[in-house]
Amino acid sequence: MAGTVHDLTTPALIVDAEALQRNLAEMARALPGARLRPHVKAHKCTALAKRQLEAGHRSFTCATVREMEGMAAAGLGEDLLLANEVLDGSRLAALGDLARVTVAVDSPETIEAAAASGIREVVIDVNVGMPRCGCSPDDAGRLADLARSRGLEVRGVMGYEGHVVGLPDRGAREQMTEDAMKLLLRAHADVGGDLVSAGGTGTFDINTWATEIQAGSYALMDTAYGELGLPFRQAVFVLAAVIHVSPTHAVANAGLKAFGMDHGNPAMEGGHQVFIVSDEHVTFVPSGSVKVGDLVRFVPAHVDPTVAYHERMHLVDGEDVIDTWPVDLRGW
Amino acid sequence: MAGTVHDLTTPALIVDAEALQRNLAEMARALPGARLRPHVKAHKCTALAKRQLEAGHRSFTCATVREMEGMAAAGLGEDLLLANEVLDGSRLAALGDLARVTVAVDSPETIEAAAASGIREVVIDVNVGMPRCGCSPDDAGRLADLARSRGLEVRGVMGYEGHVVGLPDRGAREQMTEDAMKLLLRAHADVGGDLVSAGGTGTFDINTWATEIQAGSYALMDTAYGELGLPFRQAVFVLAAVIHVSPTHAVANAGLKAFGMDHGNPAMEGGHQVFIVSDEHVTFVPSGSVKVGDLVRFVPAHVDPTVAYHERMHLVDGEDVIDTWPVDLRGW
Repeated sequence: MAGTVHDLTTPALIVDAEALQRNLAEMARALPGARLRPHVKAHKCTALAKRQLEAGHRSFTCATVREMEGMAAAGLGEDLLLANEVLDGSRLAALGDLARVTVAVDSPETIEAAAASGIREVVIDVNVGMPRCGCSPDDAGRLADLARSRGLEVRGVMGYEGHVVGLPDRGAREQMTEDAMKLLLRAHADVGGDLVSAGGTGTFDINTWATEIQAGSYALMDTAYGELGLPFRQAVFVLAAVIHVSPTHAVANAGLKAFGMDHGNPAMEGGHQVFIVSDEHVTFVPSGSVKVGDLVRFVPAHVDPTVAYHERMHLVDGEDVIDTWPVDLRGW
Repeated sequence: MAGTVHDLTTPALIVDAEALQRNLAEMARALPGARLRPHVKAHKCTALAKRQLEAGHRSFTCATVREMEGMAAAGLGEDLLLANEVLDGSRLAALGDLARVTVAVDSPETIEAAAASGIREVVIDVNVGMPRCGCSPDDAGRLADLARSRGLEVRGVMGYEGHVVGLPDRGAREQMTEDAMKLLLRAHADVGGDLVSAGGTGTFDINTWATEIQAGSYALMDTAYGELGLPFRQAVFVLAAVIHVSPTHAVANAGLKAFGMDHGNPAMEGGHQVFIVSDEHVTFVPSGSVKVGDLVRFVPAHVDPTVAYHERMHLVDGEDVIDTWPVDLRGW
């Protein structure tokens, strides 16, 4: 797409091309090649994943079957890990030669589902402290044996320290990551295999126990990760137009259907203060003079559920729109 | 689509066909024909809008240009009100004979934008107490004169008592709706025209001052409106599968990308308690025995931003899926 940000239909998801490229380069320096298995759930965009491939990472992490399908269709299927449990793997098995598919399993039921679907490779998903999926570390070896008895190749273990990645205090992140990874390594000793897959943006340079880190948010960032002092810049914004100005407030045309809200309100650039977010509007208190037609930029509080609302993201260099990428991995 | 809910890819947005039909009938009894101008922003689905047309309502309210385009393309363009300000009306003017298009204006800039785009009909949007768009009641007559001087037909006024519709106390809703509508009628006296458009699901049987009510949530409902004692039933749910069970918790495969979160966590049927909502998971405390593969149903806290995450909604009768409707009005 040619043109400038002034030509975009608002609200629009825009990505600062330079910030993105710096984030990708910074991560590739810290975790080169297979040390990073980029998680696509934060950006849901195969064009962005291709940039991660160009930065040297050839294996990817997905959260949904749709993401696996989309990555395979885009030619990015060399080594795809579905870091999530599935009960019906038929769509994954149907990918055939388009992708090397590995799925997480954490119970006899999910092992049986994988085997019955024709999936060939799995990792044992271990609960390392966050109350979500994952088996007890003590059960990992037994589940690996069960998986192998069903003909599945067990590539190793995964365990996401999701209760740690967002902690504001780095010392706490360090200590709790070590605690979590001790559990994962104990499980790995019983399971075997090459992979110890873990981590996220908040622990990318802390988690030295995992063989590969599943970070995703680092590419685009959000206000939550922005508070952790990480070496990544805010790269994604929601662009909106001011459609109303009154003596007490102003209104921009982006709302609840443009922002993931679980981390609270988005922030605004330019010193404006977000007051109310409703379905298609943000009411804000301007920092200075604004007028109808002005463009304003919001910083998402949580990147993943924000991106998932948008059909496309526009790569920008200042006010120039230099490319438009479909957010093609949405849905399930 | 044939089949049962067990055939659906989860998470899935499902709609109880009987509850929907009862909600539509209940509203059509209370506000027959043109007394209701159904707002499509809550369901974003032309197939559902056709049901509202069958219930007797021929004029509709939209929040976005995309909704206007989709409604026109579906043959539902007899009388479409964009209850929102736009700075570029060219896509609306391009609808030509496909739709009668009326847009809200609240400033000289939005009047100029409408006139410059070739839009022919407007309503004056009046702020009746909620800090969002809308002119001061005192400015409405002057803006109507300005619009007419620019060749626009002024059909009347609109003023949304959005600060009132969700108040839990009915007495407060009644008093504050009256206060808001006094402001709107004062503006209408200066503006003229046939339309006094206002209201929402929370004031549908309270707001007797408006000539038409812009309710939308009544068709599908959510937990927030469910607390107001309205005669509408919960009709929309997010269906998910249990993918993990541990001694302390269980996990279903629906998460932040399946639920609007601005009103907080969704509720669960079956007495289960939502514990943590993450990107693709809900961790919950089961009310009793659950097993991997069980289906569970969530009730959205806020219907509009929940529906906007989903590509389709499945109409169900018990466990039978009787139809599948695209959520075809998403995006902008």
